[in-house]
Amino acid sequence: MKIIVVGAGGDIGKAACKELQQRHDILTVGRSAGDYLVDISDLNAVKSLYEEVGNFDAVVSCAGDAAFVPLADMNQETFMIGLRQKVMGQVNLVLAGLDFISDAGSFTLTSGVLDRDPIRMGSNAATANGALAGFAKSAAIEMPRGLRVNVVSPGMLDVSSSRYGAWFRGHKPVSSHDVGLAYAKCVEGALTGQVVIVD
Amino acid sequence: MKIIVVGAGGDIGKAACKELQQRHDILTVGRSAGDYLVDISDLNAVKSLYEEVGNFDAVVSCAGDAAFVPLADMNQETFMIGLRQKVMGQVNLVLAGLDFISDAGSFTLTSGVLDRDPIRMGSNAATANGALAGFAKSAAIEMPRGLRVNVVSPGMLDVSSSRYGAWFRGHKPVSSHDVGLAYAKCVEGALTGQVVIVD
Repeated sequence: MKIIVVGAGGDIGKAACKELQQRHDILTVGRSAGDYLVDISDLNAVKSLYEEVGNFDAVVSCAGDAAFVPLADMNQETFMIGLRQKVMGQVNLVLAGLDFISDAGSFTLTSGVLDRDPIRMGSNAATANGALAGFAKSAAIEMPRGLRVNVVSPGMLDVSSSRYGAWFRGHKPVSSHDVGLAYAKCVEGALTGQVVIVD
Repeated sequence: MKIIVVGAGGDIGKAACKELQQRHDILTVGRSAGDYLVDISDLNAVKSLYEEVGNFDAVVSCAGDAAFVPLADMNQETFMIGLRQKVMGQVNLVLAGLDFISDAGSFTLTSGVLDRDPIRMGSNAATANGALAGFAKSAAIEMPRGLRVNVVSPGMLDVSSSRYGAWFRGHKPVSSHDVGLAYAKCVEGALTGQVVIVD
């Protein structure tokens, strides 16, 4: 398969690529690094990406920022970061992709643990994660041409714990290898409308 | 208690008011009707509302639009309606309210059935519903002064079925009285961080 991986440079993106590149052709996309540079929060930029790539069979998104701010300090501007980037950005990859992706292709988005196991300062990310779950469940029933859409929801990765561990005290780091497998399950399996949890 | 009910003029808002007004003072808020006229998608407008009201003990939100559009016709502009109105608008009621609401006060937001039982054209609403669940679960652990936050997630109301039934074929309408009870449970009970489903 020819697979577009967005956010390929992050810890989760690397885990997805490591698993998928064993069997597939990977095109990497990022805001500042990758084969293609795209800001996914702009639907037209995503359309241009797909036009440029041409044919592809799957999109894997490991991208999307959220604001990590104490609830009491959150304002509309900071809260919209997660809605515009992590939610709308990833949804844009699906909306624009419907006209371009191969029959029976798949979209695999990424949420995270914080809507089921919250931490301080995590309300914006938790909101985005819940949103993506709702989107996948609903969008799956309207997909044309046998297309599929799923969400991978990993806990904090083992390789990320040196940077983020202080925010996630008590959270058991998850295996990057296992996270990679979750993307393979979504891309190469037949699931749709699911949140694949890696805990 | 003195309770602010936003979106009091809709079917869900009426159900909430009918139950709560038996024991509490209700102030109604809407975009076009009510004791106060406010667009909740503007955080500053919500702050002004709270300053004007002065003391209050609970906020109940039954407000927030989403776009009902086939997935294939959805674009960024239509999709952002649900994120700005139903998600950000209701979150604004909480963010602004932290500085104004009485100790041990509560925020009760409204999502809906579509993230657990999707329908065609429902992906924007399903996304918003999931987002609100994630927000409540996470925000609850950062609430100061014994404040609480919950979400009521009702199915299609009996009183709404003549208008919306064609979109919700096969969905069993839920009792408006039961929906009212869910708001009473959230406001007068001690739950926090929960999604109270009315099916």
